[in-house]
Amino acid sequence: MTASELNLIKNPQQQHHARRVAVCRHAQKMGIGALLVTTPVNIFYLSGFSGSNGVLALCANAEATLVTDRRYELHARHETTADHVLLERDALAQAAQVAGNLAAATAHGSQVGFEAEHLTVAQFQQLRGTVSPELLSPTTGIVAEVRRHKDPEEIDTIARACQIAEAALAEVVSDIRIGDQEVQIARQLEFAMLRLGADDKAFATIVAAGAHSAVPHHVPTAAPVQTGDLLKIDFGAKLGHYHSDITRTFVVGRDPDTEQLAIHAAVADAAERARAVVRAGLPAEVPYRVARESLDAVGWAQNFTHGLGHGVGLEIHEAPIMTAVTTSRLVTGDVITVEPGAYFPGRGGVRIEDTLVVTESGARALSSYPRALARVG
Amino acid sequence: MTASELNLIKNPQQQHHARRVAVCRHAQKMGIGALLVTTPVNIFYLSGFSGSNGVLALCANAEATLVTDRRYELHARHETTADHVLLERDALAQAAQVAGNLAAATAHGSQVGFEAEHLTVAQFQQLRGTVSPELLSPTTGIVAEVRRHKDPEEIDTIARACQIAEAALAEVVSDIRIGDQEVQIARQLEFAMLRLGADDKAFATIVAAGAHSAVPHHVPTAAPVQTGDLLKIDFGAKLGHYHSDITRTFVVGRDPDTEQLAIHAAVADAAERARAVVRAGLPAEVPYRVARESLDAVGWAQNFTHGLGHGVGLEIHEAPIMTAVTTSRLVTGDVITVEPGAYFPGRGGVRIEDTLVVTESGARALSSYPRALARVG
Repeated sequence: MTASELNLIKNPQQQHHARRVAVCRHAQKMGIGALLVTTPVNIFYLSGFSGSNGVLALCANAEATLVTDRRYELHARHETTADHVLLERDALAQAAQVAGNLAAATAHGSQVGFEAEHLTVAQFQQLRGTVSPELLSPTTGIVAEVRRHKDPEEIDTIARACQIAEAALAEVVSDIRIGDQEVQIARQLEFAMLRLGADDKAFATIVAAGAHSAVPHHVPTAAPVQTGDLLKIDFGAKLGHYHSDITRTFVVGRDPDTEQLAIHAAVADAAERARAVVRAGLPAEVPYRVARESLDAVGWAQNFTHGLGHGVGLEIHEAPIMTAVTTSRLVTGDVITVEPGAYFPGRGGVRIEDTLVVTESGARALSSYPRALARVG
Repeated sequence: MTASELNLIKNPQQQHHARRVAVCRHAQKMGIGALLVTTPVNIFYLSGFSGSNGVLALCANAEATLVTDRRYELHARHETTADHVLLERDALAQAAQVAGNLAAATAHGSQVGFEAEHLTVAQFQQLRGTVSPELLSPTTGIVAEVRRHKDPEEIDTIARACQIAEAALAEVVSDIRIGDQEVQIARQLEFAMLRLGADDKAFATIVAAGAHSAVPHHVPTAAPVQTGDLLKIDFGAKLGHYHSDITRTFVVGRDPDTEQLAIHAAVADAAERARAVVRAGLPAEVPYRVARESLDAVGWAQNFTHGLGHGVGLEIHEAPIMTAVTTSRLVTGDVITVEPGAYFPGRGGVRIEDTLVVTESGARALSSYPRALARVG
């Protein structure tokens, strides 16, 4: 199944089946005859089940068995496209048994794969009671890699999540007044997103004023925004299980000063150059290096203390992660953030972040809120 | 350190230190000389650090070393009471090295404990590169057990989270109209809680009307509430890292009919009897059995398809879990839910849930919203 084949399918039953075929093909290449999927978003992606307790046993003709408990009986009946649904108190043990039987019966490999980045040591100990330890294979990122090839419906949902976030931002920044607390601004953004149709915020909203804007992952406080502060707002909307992620930086109560303009221009330039090189097939560290070199040219590479961006989809942070040490290549359908920043401890910082979809020939921004350093308040 | 000693301490430095002493005492009884804490809420509980990437290495005189990355440098400086803070790209490996040295130097035991219900198999494989596998000990629930002894500030925060939730419920139900969608009611509750001072909702709000009310963990849909529907609302507020959890069931657009009154009365009776037996020292399955027997007396035990309740605190679900198979006893300072329900697939269901704090002599309800089956809309 190629990315474009995945993209032509719309009916959930066919869509989930196609995704399962792609996952099983990856697994079988590794000698894995059956895969136990325990990560909730992966279970949702492959079967439509959104309950909090479930395990999916997969493969041998991409057949899927969902095991959950009685609380989720109706969810399982109505939501899932899995071929079989079992209701059991101990979902993991039951799914392991199904997977063990599938692996034993297939010519594709007798190993039972599990998701090593999600399964806990305690669950692993439990698994070993059902499947012989020598048949258990840790796997990493099989479903995550398939999830990178977003289909048009997924991209459309993320685009709508971006639009909601941007409309909320426009509303809220027009109302900011000197003395508003960071935490009030964060709550107002969250209100506005819910009112505009979001299911939830995409992650804990960051509103960081003045020296706080130098803290990449600042948690909003009761500190009031003051004249001359840089005001960094990093937030997003969640819609139909998908996320958006955007950051804009403003100046409070007066026009930006020369230093603020210089920092913002350097970050905006880094972001623009990085966005410009993105295309399918490119090693994922290249845009990171481009942004870093751009900031290095003005002497601020060491003030850019985090990665360039990350995949966005069913999770707010997913593959690909774009840092200096990333080894993967961008693929068509990747939805990624590009979010360089420059931080000056005790003084302030600027970050500019957009969400983009990667195409054959480049990238299309799903976020389009004006990026210039605007005055608010 | 007894529960009452824990409760007399107020300064965060002393409070965290006392918690660490209690954890280390538990660990040392198991021959564990050092403990690697990887669960974020446990790290927050023991050190005040709230960043998303950090590992705490503990013990030998309850000394704590927090390892995090550069993004969280300022958080680590301002928030944490840990004795040492290290900034490293690979926090787990560095913390494991610290823990290995602590365990080697102490007379309390040479094993390095880790949290088996949180550490993933992938992280465990990584740990084995730093600490010899024979020195690594899986542990379960050490910090969770200490967290059960909530101090007065924690209880006060949960009580305030309950009050916000109840005030929001009162506002929103007074505005419900026939035809409102479940999902609109859910969003309005979330709005109202934010407006009333909550940091967030405590978990995904459940609003379930008509046949949906028979689904214990229903996810709100665009379905309109209709005359005669049972309307089950299960929700809570998050405040200062703590959660509240409450469920009330209503009837839409007319007075309850005889069957609705009978189901509601049976559930209310089960809830009241269960709340009445709660006290420190009681086996945690007793209130479950009391509720179940109460429903059995009217022939509906098999319609009560889930546990009676769970601890509430830094997590929405934490120890103790109150089901038929629970083996622990209630302790002073446990904050628990009591939430029996009866569900009739295709027709509807009722749940009544309160949050209580366990005392020496009984329990004190932190939620007090009227429990009678009221008409809305």
